[in-house]
Amino acid sequence: MGTGQELYKKAKTLIPGGTMLLSKRPEMFLPDLWPSYFSKAKGCKIWDLDGKELLDMSIMGIGTNTLGYGNDEVDNAVLETVKKGNMTTLNCPEEVYLAEKLVELNPWADMVRFARSGGEANSIAIRIARAASGKDKVAICGYHGWHDWYLSANHNDGGDDLSGHLLAGLSPKGVPKNLKDTVYPFNYNNFEELLSIVNNNEIGVIKMEVLRNFGPEDNFLQKVRNLATERNIVLIFDECTSGFRETFGGIYQKFGVEPDIAMYGKTIGNGYALTAVVGKREVMEAAQNTFISSTFWTERIGSTAALATLKVMEEVKSWEIITATGNKMRNGWQRLADSYKLNISISGIPALSTYSFNSPDALSYKTFIAQEMLDKGFLASTNFYASTAQTEAHLESYFNALDEVYSSISKCEKGDLKIQDLLNGPVCHGGFKRLN
Amino acid sequence: MGTGQELYKKAKTLIPGGTMLLSKRPEMFLPDLWPSYFSKAKGCKIWDLDGKELLDMSIMGIGTNTLGYGNDEVDNAVLETVKKGNMTTLNCPEEVYLAEKLVELNPWADMVRFARSGGEANSIAIRIARAASGKDKVAICGYHGWHDWYLSANHNDGGDDLSGHLLAGLSPKGVPKNLKDTVYPFNYNNFEELLSIVNNNEIGVIKMEVLRNFGPEDNFLQKVRNLATERNIVLIFDECTSGFRETFGGIYQKFGVEPDIAMYGKTIGNGYALTAVVGKREVMEAAQNTFISSTFWTERIGSTAALATLKVMEEVKSWEIITATGNKMRNGWQRLADSYKLNISISGIPALSTYSFNSPDALSYKTFIAQEMLDKGFLASTNFYASTAQTEAHLESYFNALDEVYSSISKCEKGDLKIQDLLNGPVCHGGFKRLN
Repeated sequence: MGTGQELYKKAKTLIPGGTMLLSKRPEMFLPDLWPSYFSKAKGCKIWDLDGKELLDMSIMGIGTNTLGYGNDEVDNAVLETVKKGNMTTLNCPEEVYLAEKLVELNPWADMVRFARSGGEANSIAIRIARAASGKDKVAICGYHGWHDWYLSANHNDGGDDLSGHLLAGLSPKGVPKNLKDTVYPFNYNNFEELLSIVNNNEIGVIKMEVLRNFGPEDNFLQKVRNLATERNIVLIFDECTSGFRETFGGIYQKFGVEPDIAMYGKTIGNGYALTAVVGKREVMEAAQNTFISSTFWTERIGSTAALATLKVMEEVKSWEIITATGNKMRNGWQRLADSYKLNISISGIPALSTYSFNSPDALSYKTFIAQEMLDKGFLASTNFYASTAQTEAHLESYFNALDEVYSSISKCEKGDLKIQDLLNGPVCHGGFKRLN
Repeated sequence: MGTGQELYKKAKTLIPGGTMLLSKRPEMFLPDLWPSYFSKAKGCKIWDLDGKELLDMSIMGIGTNTLGYGNDEVDNAVLETVKKGNMTTLNCPEEVYLAEKLVELNPWADMVRFARSGGEANSIAIRIARAASGKDKVAICGYHGWHDWYLSANHNDGGDDLSGHLLAGLSPKGVPKNLKDTVYPFNYNNFEELLSIVNNNEIGVIKMEVLRNFGPEDNFLQKVRNLATERNIVLIFDECTSGFRETFGGIYQKFGVEPDIAMYGKTIGNGYALTAVVGKREVMEAAQNTFISSTFWTERIGSTAALATLKVMEEVKSWEIITATGNKMRNGWQRLADSYKLNISISGIPALSTYSFNSPDALSYKTFIAQEMLDKGFLASTNFYASTAQTEAHLESYFNALDEVYSSISKCEKGDLKIQDLLNGPVCHGGFKRLN
């Protein structure tokens, strides 16, 4: 057992759930064997606690580092900030410059608030939108964080309303039951469902991801926009995940539909914590009637890193690079699957690609890929969040290594091998599970 | 008008409320004239955007930087982190080391969760405690952040239940009205009031600041602890503000009373964002039954900075130094007030000291102090959050400068001068106000 797994065993006794982020649990990749912790990182390479060098062909910090790890320009801006001072009694001017830049990128918007995590940005946007509309009820579509307002959907009579948006079977324990029937999920591309929710409830806010697994059909986004405008509903696009992956800003730009508020996170600071709520003046000014204030939102590193990240993104057109790389990855997976007659389904946008084997053993195969690829020096699973750091050569070496793994999987599918015999540990988790 | 005020004018058109933290609004100190933004900082010195050097004898980053600005040991740890990598697909080992250290400092506790802001730590603690107790209703005493669960108290029939805890007259706009009667504030040292709340409602959680303006009387904390134990209520001490200012850890240590959960923030990373929820295993394990997860909680800077900060704090016994400095400050204020026959009231713990003039012109005098002291090269108001960076010599130069200001105030009190004639701009705000 590596040093990382030993530390993780201790972590589970000290930290409920083992990590701060469900998606970074070793059990989500390769239980008992995943390196779990890093000592250093650069480009798309990560060194684990035993000094082993690994090529990250998986989630690149859950999609935060689209410019790769340790981007020199971003890191130099942060180093300079640390040397000059990160926090004082006065404010940092960079928050104003960053607000200006974000308004420039979102010409329909006028004002900005910053926070340090996506959950916070979501809660700020909901507070402002509810204050602006004067109504408490919200229709949602997609993943919008861990806070009470969102998880309360699972108190509704359906009991599992967030299945298909966050995770299935999630208990809303610890979320006040009074919040029942304040949040109504609707399915993507189902405009009739949303219309019925709006017709039957006093909805003040619609919050949605512009897209996640597939694109809008039958003018879906435009219909949502028109409905919001007609009924005086605040429309929020949550771009925390999708932002800066297909355009220089929100993915909404591709569809010619503008929200009243948009949120950005993940990519915007290339691995440094910064999230932003961007909106129209008449909506954002509602923040002046309610208390939204936190000490660590004033830290200078976030806005400095974001300014540098936006500059580099714009210079290199990172969204084009990562989309091209993501497409190469998808093509490679499909080619390999075809050559071994394996049946896979690929979803997500190119820069955030995921696939699964259409087989009852899908989770076992996913685990096997992580196990075998780790052995060959890769962090890999069945998803790939692209960065500008992965080159043609990295992809080539990845697919050369993956070929052998697919070969074994095809033997399992044919019945010549048993996947259970090939795994050195337990099968990975498919979602949220209590850890022992 | 300085460069900072010019930028702030623009900020108010771009950011609703102008800043991310109410307490850092220039209007809270010196409207139209406060330097507002910093370019660099070191020790207790801050340089504004015009390069003017200022001695910070005010709030030291709202109490975050108890080791001063730019503490070498903390900053070197952060610089090293930036160079090695702040964020990857794997987790940072420092979060485990930090969890271990915090359990060591709180021997009654077993497990820890981290976040990046005090509001988040408060929301995590409430979620876990509600999940553990199985009850939604909470009794609170003190300031616990900006989130819905807390602000909802102002939906109760009283209408202004948070007056005396957060701010008077705060509108709960944008907070779901369904949350009415889930949170019940009680007054500090009023055990009968708390008992009545607990007797009349299904309270599952008591959350409180151990002390803010004055200490416990008549065994108050012990009575609260006993009540919580008897009624199977989770007791949470919010140490985000008080932690590491009088002891190496929670201020609760002074009173021999232990909670089930404690939160730390502000001081723990010396100006880098890190907050922690520390608790008993049987309570913290409830986090495993509910979804509490966020990408930027996995950033490495927070736990690295906190580990270095704790090390330096322990070495220099910073809580003793800042308490001694705070006491010197209070003595100096009182001496000066006495010598000019001014009537002031000092409150808070020594390291977080505040005073006000017992005069109808109190806010004008506060503004005048900021105005005059700024002119003499100090950031000053009527509060002082001590750090290890302020020396005897800093205090001496501060009091030499303040003498003249008090002299003018005493002339105003006697009627020989009018404070309105002495102010070069508007009077500072006393609380939350809409900005124009």
